[in-house]
Amino acid sequence: MIVTLARDADVPAVRAALAGLGLWTVLYDGPEGTRHLLVLDHSRAVDPETVHGVDGVASVSARSPRPPRVDLLPCRVEIAGIPIGHGCRPVLMAGPCSVESREQLESLAARVAASGARFLRGGAFKPRTSPYEFQGLGEQALGWLRDAADRHDLAVVTEALSEETVAAVADVADLIQIGSRNMHNSALLRAAGATGRPILLKRGMAATIEEWFGAAEYCLERGAPAIIFCERGIRGFDRETRNLLDLASVALLAHVHRVPVIVDPSHALGRRDLMPPLTRAALAAGAHGLLVEVHDAPERARSDGPQALCPAEFAALADGIASAAAPVERIR
Amino acid sequence: MIVTLARDADVPAVRAALAGLGLWTVLYDGPEGTRHLLVLDHSRAVDPETVHGVDGVASVSARSPRPPRVDLLPCRVEIAGIPIGHGCRPVLMAGPCSVESREQLESLAARVAASGARFLRGGAFKPRTSPYEFQGLGEQALGWLRDAADRHDLAVVTEALSEETVAAVADVADLIQIGSRNMHNSALLRAAGATGRPILLKRGMAATIEEWFGAAEYCLERGAPAIIFCERGIRGFDRETRNLLDLASVALLAHVHRVPVIVDPSHALGRRDLMPPLTRAALAAGAHGLLVEVHDAPERARSDGPQALCPAEFAALADGIASAAAPVERIR
Amino acid sequence: MIVTLARDADVPAVRAALAGLGLWTVLYDGPEGTRHLLVLDHSRAVDPETVHGVDGVASVSARSPRPPRVDLLPCRVEIAGIPIGHGCRPVLMAGPCSVESREQLESLAARVAASGARFLRGGAFKPRTSPYEFQGLGEQALGWLRDAADRHDLAVVTEALSEETVAAVADVADLIQIGSRNMHNSALLRAAGATGRPILLKRGMAATIEEWFGAAEYCLERGAPAIIFCERGIRGFDRETRNLLDLASVALLAHVHRVPVIVDPSHALGRRDLMPPLTRAALAAGAHGLLVEVHDAPERARSDGPQALCPAEFAALADGIASAAAPVERIR
Amino acid sequence: MIVTLARDADVPAVRAALAGLGLWTVLYDGPEGTRHLLVLDHSRAVDPETVHGVDGVASVSARSPRPPRVDLLPCRVEIAGIPIGHGCRPVLMAGPCSVESREQLESLAARVAASGARFLRGGAFKPRTSPYEFQGLGEQALGWLRDAADRHDLAVVTEALSEETVAAVADVADLIQIGSRNMHNSALLRAAGATGRPILLKRGMAATIEEWFGAAEYCLERGAPAIIFCERGIRGFDRETRNLLDLASVALLAHVHRVPVIVDPSHALGRRDLMPPLTRAALAAGAHGLLVEVHDAPERARSDGPQALCPAEFAALADGIASAAAPVERIR
Repeated sequence: MIVTLARDADVPAVRAALAGLGLWTVLYDGPEGTRHLLVLDHSRAVDPETVHGVDGVASVSARSPRPPRVDLLPCRVEIAGIPIGHGCRPVLMAGPCSVESREQLESLAARVAASGARFLRGGAFKPRTSPYEFQGLGEQALGWLRDAADRHDLAVVTEALSEETVAAVADVADLIQIGSRNMHNSALLRAAGATGRPILLKRGMAATIEEWFGAAEYCLERGAPAIIFCERGIRGFDRETRNLLDLASVALLAHVHRVPVIVDPSHALGRRDLMPPLTRAALAAGAHGLLVEVHDAPERARSDGPQALCPAEFAALADGIASAAAPVERIR
Repeated sequence: MIVTLARDADVPAVRAALAGLGLWTVLYDGPEGTRHLLVLDHSRAVDPETVHGVDGVASVSARSPRPPRVDLLPCRVEIAGIPIGHGCRPVLMAGPCSVESREQLESLAARVAASGARFLRGGAFKPRTSPYEFQGLGEQALGWLRDAADRHDLAVVTEALSEETVAAVADVADLIQIGSRNMHNSALLRAAGATGRPILLKRGMAATIEEWFGAAEYCLERGAPAIIFCERGIRGFDRETRNLLDLASVALLAHVHRVPVIVDPSHALGRRDLMPPLTRAALAAGAHGLLVEVHDAPERARSDGPQALCPAEFAALADGIASAAAPVERIR
Repeated sequence: MIVTLARDADVPAVRAALAGLGLWTVLYDGPEGTRHLLVLDHSRAVDPETVHGVDGVASVSARSPRPPRVDLLPCRVEIAGIPIGHGCRPVLMAGPCSVESREQLESLAARVAASGARFLRGGAFKPRTSPYEFQGLGEQALGWLRDAADRHDLAVVTEALSEETVAAVADVADLIQIGSRNMHNSALLRAAGATGRPILLKRGMAATIEEWFGAAEYCLERGAPAIIFCERGIRGFDRETRNLLDLASVALLAHVHRVPVIVDPSHALGRRDLMPPLTRAALAAGAHGLLVEVHDAPERARSDGPQALCPAEFAALADGIASAAAPVERIR
Repeated sequence: MIVTLARDADVPAVRAALAGLGLWTVLYDGPEGTRHLLVLDHSRAVDPETVHGVDGVASVSARSPRPPRVDLLPCRVEIAGIPIGHGCRPVLMAGPCSVESREQLESLAARVAASGARFLRGGAFKPRTSPYEFQGLGEQALGWLRDAADRHDLAVVTEALSEETVAAVADVADLIQIGSRNMHNSALLRAAGATGRPILLKRGMAATIEEWFGAAEYCLERGAPAIIFCERGIRGFDRETRNLLDLASVALLAHVHRVPVIVDPSHALGRRDLMPPLTRAALAAGAHGLLVEVHDAPERARSDGPQALCPAEFAALADGIASAAAPVERIR
C-alpha cells in the first residue's frame, strides 16, 4: 500500500498509528508538503479502509493489478471427493518417488491407504539433473498407478513433465503435479490447465510468492478448476538439508491468502530423520496436507531412496498427525 | 563421512544399502580400483559403525575436528532455576524490543508473567541499521529490567552489544543475548563467555550451522556455562516476511545435535499475523522456547512496534502453546 | 577430489603442500590411521597427478561421473560462420526484447549491424510472470526476424518456449535460446537438442554450475551440435539490481571449464546506467560475447523497456568493447 | 521514488515515458482516481526533477531520510598521500593474510612494493570461524607491519577486531579495516570512527547496500574522515567459489553513489586461478583498487594459504592492471 498523508498530518503520529496496526512504513517526501508512506510487504495484512481511518491519512492506494483468479480461489476444494483446505483434515499423499513396477505400486498402495493416505503419488515421468539418470517408466507406469489407486480407493497425483504427455497424465491423474523445475514453464502450465484437471503446483526453487501466483494464473486462465500449492523447499546456502523449507510461505498462503497449500517434506529436507518434527511443524504452520515419498525398500529405489520413508515409518508419521491435527482457525 | 569401498565391492549395491540407511552419496574413483563414497551433509545422521557394517565397506572416516565443547553440551540446562531443553516445557521469554521506561517494564512484566512467561526480555542497548535511530536507554534500563523481573519472579535476558558494557549486562542478566549482527564478533563472544553467564546465541543472518557452532565455541572456551541457540530468520529473497524462518535448522539442533534451541518469531517474521501458526510450528519442529516481543502499546514503541504483540495477543499465544505442547521424543 | 594419505603421512605437512597448490582441504579420520582429505570445490583446478606427487599422498580419487558431453565441448565454435569462444573477438547479439513489428526489426537490425552486432535477437515467444502480460507475436514474428537478419547479414538468436513451437523456431534461428525459466525443463531441452540447432543456454535463477551442465547434457544427448552458455543473473536479496550478476561463474566456464559463455547484462542488471561498466567487466572476466536488449524507442517497448538501450547507447557500448577487448590467454 | 499521477493522466503513457527514462514502475490505485507509481530500486538513477517533467506527473517524492554523511562523501580521497577513488589509478593493497614474522613481512613488503602496491596489508588480529584456529600474533605484529611498510614507503591497512585493541591498531594503521564479520558490529564501528583514522569497510556476508551505508554512518558520525568500501563476496549457494563476488554493487558504488570502493578478490573467490580475470573485471566494473593476499610461501601460511598469490603471481597481476587500467568516465 501507499498511504498519502494529509498536508497537516503529524508524520510520526501517523507512522506510530500504522505501527500499532502492524505496518512497517518508509517515508517519501515530495514538494510542498506532499508525503507518502510506503507500507512494506512484511507488514501484517490490513484492509485499506482500516488504514484510511487513521488520523492524518488522506488516501490509501493498493497495488494493481492483483492476480485475479488466484484472488478468487476458494479456501477449500474437493478433489476426487476428498476435501482439501481450510477446516479439512490434513490430506496425506504418499507413494514412491518413481513408479518402478506394478507389484511395487500395488503393495505400497495397500500400505499407505491402510495408514490413512488419500492420494497415491508416484512418478511415471521423472525430472532429473542429468539425462543419464533414470527418467521414469513413462506411460505404462500411469496405468499401474491408476489401477493400484482404484483398488485401494485412493486418488492419483502424478507429475506431468511435457506438453506431449500431459494429456496422458490427465487421463489417469485426479491431480496433475507440476514440479519445481517447471513452475516457470508457461507452455506446460497452460497445457496442464487446459486438460481441465486440478493442479498441484510446486513452488520454483527461487520463486517469490508473486511468481508462484503468476504460475497459478497460467493454469487457471486455461481452465484449471483448482490449484493446490505445494512448498518443497527453496535453494539455501546451508548443506545440512537438501533444500530450505520455508514454512512462513505456507502460513501466508493458508492464513493470509487463504488458498489450499501442502508441503512436500521429502524434497524440502532430503533426510528421513527430520521428517517427524517438520511434518508436525508444517501442519502447525497451516499446511492442509503432506506429499510424502514412501518406498517399500528404499535401498532398492531407482531415485531418491535416501529420503523415502518405509511404510512403517509412514504409518507412524500418519498416526502422529491424526492425533495432533486439529483444524486451525482463521487468523485475521 | 567418507566411506572407502573394498576392492571387490559391488558399488551400486553399497550405494543402495547406504541409501537404505538414508545416506546420499557421491562416488569418487581412484587408481587401481580405489573407490570412495562421500556422504552428503543432507543425509540422515547415522553412526559410522552402522555404515561400517554394510557389505563392501572397507572403512569409514569422519570429519575432524568436531566442535569439541558444543559436542559436549547437555540437551537440557537450568537457568535461574528454569529448565530449558529436551523434555522440558517450552519456555517463554517476552517483553519489549527496547526498554523505554520503568513504568512500561513494570506493567509488561506483570502481564507476561501472568501469561506464563519465565523470562523478561528488553533491550537496553539496541543494534540498529542507522546510528540516527533510537539506540536504547543504556545502563539505567538494565536496573529497571532487573527490578521488574524480580518483582514478578522472572529471569532476565538482555542483549550485550559491546565489550565495554558486557560486564554491566552480566550484572543483571540471567542470560546474555548475543544478537544476529554480532554472531561473528569474536571479541564480544569471548567477553560474554568470560562473564560466566549463560549465553543466548542468535544465528547470524547468513550463518551456516557450522559457523553458529563456531561462535558457540568462542563463548564456551572462555567459560560460558551454557548456550541457548536462537533461530531468528536468515536473509531471504522474498519480501513478504522480514527474514526467512528456517525451522529445519531448529529441528536439526533439537533432534540431531540435541542442544537447547529457541525461536524468535518476532524478528523472523516481522508480522504479527503469522505469529500464531509459526510459533506452533516452531515448537512442533522442536524449539524449546520462544523469544517474543510484547509491548503494551505497539503504536508507541520506540523500535519494532509493527512486530510486537500486545499483552492480550501474547496471552492468547501462550494459552495455545500450553495446550498444544507435549515434549517430543528423541527421533533417533 | 578425495586425497587418501599414506599411513605414516605428516598430515599438517600434506595439507600445507596442498594449500601451496591452491587446495582447501577438510580432514576425515578413520580407523587404524586411515586419513583422507576432501578437497573443497572452491579450490584451484589442479590435476590429480600433481596432487598424487605430493609427499605423503597415497592416492587421489576424482568425482565420477563427469558430464561427459560437456567435458568434450570445444572451447570455440562457429555458428552461422561466426566464431565464438576462446581467442575469438567478443560477439555481440542485440535487438529488442520482443519483436513488435516488421518495421521495428528492420530498423533495429540495420542499427545494431552497423554497430558491430553479429546476431539479431528478438522474442517471438515471451516468458512472462503473468499470463495477462504481452506474450509475443508468435510465429509471424519469426519470419520478420529472419528477413531482417538476412538483409543485414546477421545471424538469428531467438527463444523457444514450447515443445510445440521449437521446430518453427529452429526453422529460422541460427541459435535457439533456452531461457532461465526453462533451464530445468528437460522436455524442451531435449526437443531443442533434437532440432540439430546450436543452443544458447541461459542459467536458471538458482542453478548451480553442475545443474547448468546437466541441462546442457540434455540438449547434447539429443543432438545439439553446440552450446553457448549464458549468465543472466541469479536471484539475490538486494533490490538495487534486477538480478545478481555472477561473473565468477563466467570466469569459471571460460577459463577453467573452457566452454563458450556469454553474458546478458540486460536481465542481470535491469538498469541501463550499469551497463557500460558491467559489460566491460563481463568481457574482462572472460565472456565471449554479450546479449543485449536494444530498442529504437524504449518508451514504446511492449516488454522490458526500462532495461533496453537505445541504438546510440548500444553503438557507444560496442565502440568501447571494440577498443578494450583483446582475447585473454588461458589461465592454467 | 513515488510518482503521483495527475487525475487525468494517461497511465500507460506515463509508465511508458518512465520506462523510456529507464524506470521500472508498479501501479497503485487509490480512491477517486488517485494513482501512484512506485519506482523500483533496480531502475536507472534519475533525478526527481526529470521525472517531474513527464506529462501526467503531478509530483515526485523521494525516500527520506538518506544516509546523510555517506551522501556527502567525496568521490576520491587521499590516504597517507595516496589518492583513491574516481579518476585515480587503481590502488593495490597487498600482503599476507596473517602477519607471521618480522622477516616474512619485510620480504613481502619489498616484493609487493616493487610490483606497485601502495598499501601493505596483514592481519595482527584474525577473525576465524573457530577459536581453536590461529588468531593472529596480536600487538607485536602491528609494530612489524609499520616498520616493514615504512621501509618500503607503503601505507598500512590492517584489521581491528575489538574495541579494546582498536586504538593500538589506529596507532600503526593508515587505514583501519573492519571485516565482513564485524560490519554490523556498531560498537566497533563507533570505536574505529572515533580514532579519527580512515576506515576500510568490508561488506557483510548478506548485507544490503543500505545496511552497508548504515555501517558507514556509524563510523562517520563518530569522526571517521574517510570510508573506503570493500566488496569481498556475499554468501552464495554454489560451492565453486568461496563466496559470491557481486560486481554490480561495485559499479553502483563507483558510478551511481560515487564513493571510493575496492574489491578483495582473495576472499570473494578463494581460488587463485580465477584471480587474473576477476581482478580485471573488478577494475572494469569501477573498483578503485584491490586488496590481495600475497604470501611468500603459501604452503607455509598460517591462514588462507590456498587463496594467497605468491609474489611472482602478484607481480604479473599488477603488471596486467597497470597496462589495462585507464580511469573510467562518469556514467551519468
